[in-house]
Amino acid sequence: MDLKSHIRNIKDFPKPGVMFRDITTLIKDPEAFNYTSDLLLSFVADKKIDKVVGVESRGFIFGAVLAHKLNAGFIPVRKPGKLPAEKVSISYSLEYGEDKLEMHKDAIQPGDKVLIHDDLLATGGTMDAVCKLIEKLGGEIVQLSFIIELSFLHGRDKLEKYDVRSIVNYVDEN
Amino acid sequence: MDLKSHIRNIKDFPKPGVMFRDITTLIKDPEAFNYTSDLLLSFVADKKIDKVVGVESRGFIFGAVLAHKLNAGFIPVRKPGKLPAEKVSISYSLEYGEDKLEMHKDAIQPGDKVLIHDDLLATGGTMDAVCKLIEKLGGEIVQLSFIIELSFLHGRDKLEKYDVRSIVNYVDEN
Repeated sequence: MDLKSHIRNIKDFPKPGVMFRDITTLIKDPEAFNYTSDLLLSFVADKKIDKVVGVESRGFIFGAVLAHKLNAGFIPVRKPGKLPAEKVSISYSLEYGEDKLEMHKDAIQPGDKVLIHDDLLATGGTMDAVCKLIEKLGGEIVQLSFIIELSFLHGRDKLEKYDVRSIVNYVDEN
Repeated sequence: MDLKSHIRNIKDFPKPGVMFRDITTLIKDPEAFNYTSDLLLSFVADKKIDKVVGVESRGFIFGAVLAHKLNAGFIPVRKPGKLPAEKVSISYSLEYGEDKLEMHKDAIQPGDKVLIHDDLLATGGTMDAVCKLIEKLGGEIVQLSFIIELSFLHGRDKLEKYDVRSIVNYVDEN
């Protein structure tokens, strides 16, 4: 299946010069949705996974499906102020300014085998921060999986010690 | 399975006097996660569903699993500014002030049979707004499903024309 044809390209969103890769057109098609789930699952099929971590909020979609299929727990990583119990948090740099992510302290047990899922790999800054959160709690990162990779932003460089998988790659903004 | 024992109660979150019902402890347990999915699925087992609509962002978790299991498309309803293409939107009242939700215009085709999922039914204001969005696009609402219901807030009154299902009910704040 040509998954790229199921991804909608939106020029200048959220800001001028950026081509937004919209997966809502992919997930509303059951065939494309299932095909994507199966591919993500195949990347990790021979591995034992205790927890699937999904990054707010598009990462929750396939993250939850993967957790369900792998019979693993699902762990949300969230923006500040959303999680109610004791947390670990991390700040990281964006192109302009800073962002922050939080996870519950009891989300990961030391030694847990963890798959982290997000929809998109761009500069890798967000995923790098999530990896640090999980390692702070003693989790063992088995794989990082994405639907889309923007390889011209070299996110893999920041994540080179991990098993990074993606399905659809874009080599430039067009 | 006693699902209530998997839900964590957090006093005074997000504000004084509110008991927050935290499902992160439920979804991190594979058995409780699967049991919840199976129950939600059983509510709609004999129905044809074309689209599962999940409400940002906790509604994405079981919403995506339901879409996958029902072989339906998944449609996210989001806070303003997140969706990149042509949208329908709706404003609705909160206890203090207003909130707004958006959905892509091409998310629902007229006649689509729709299951809407959110994690929590409180006053019903959010779900009522989502129903209006879907009906504006010509969708046919088959069921509204929730994990948790706070029946003392009488959300069902606002949604009485629909098939409303929930798994765990709380009759007061305690």
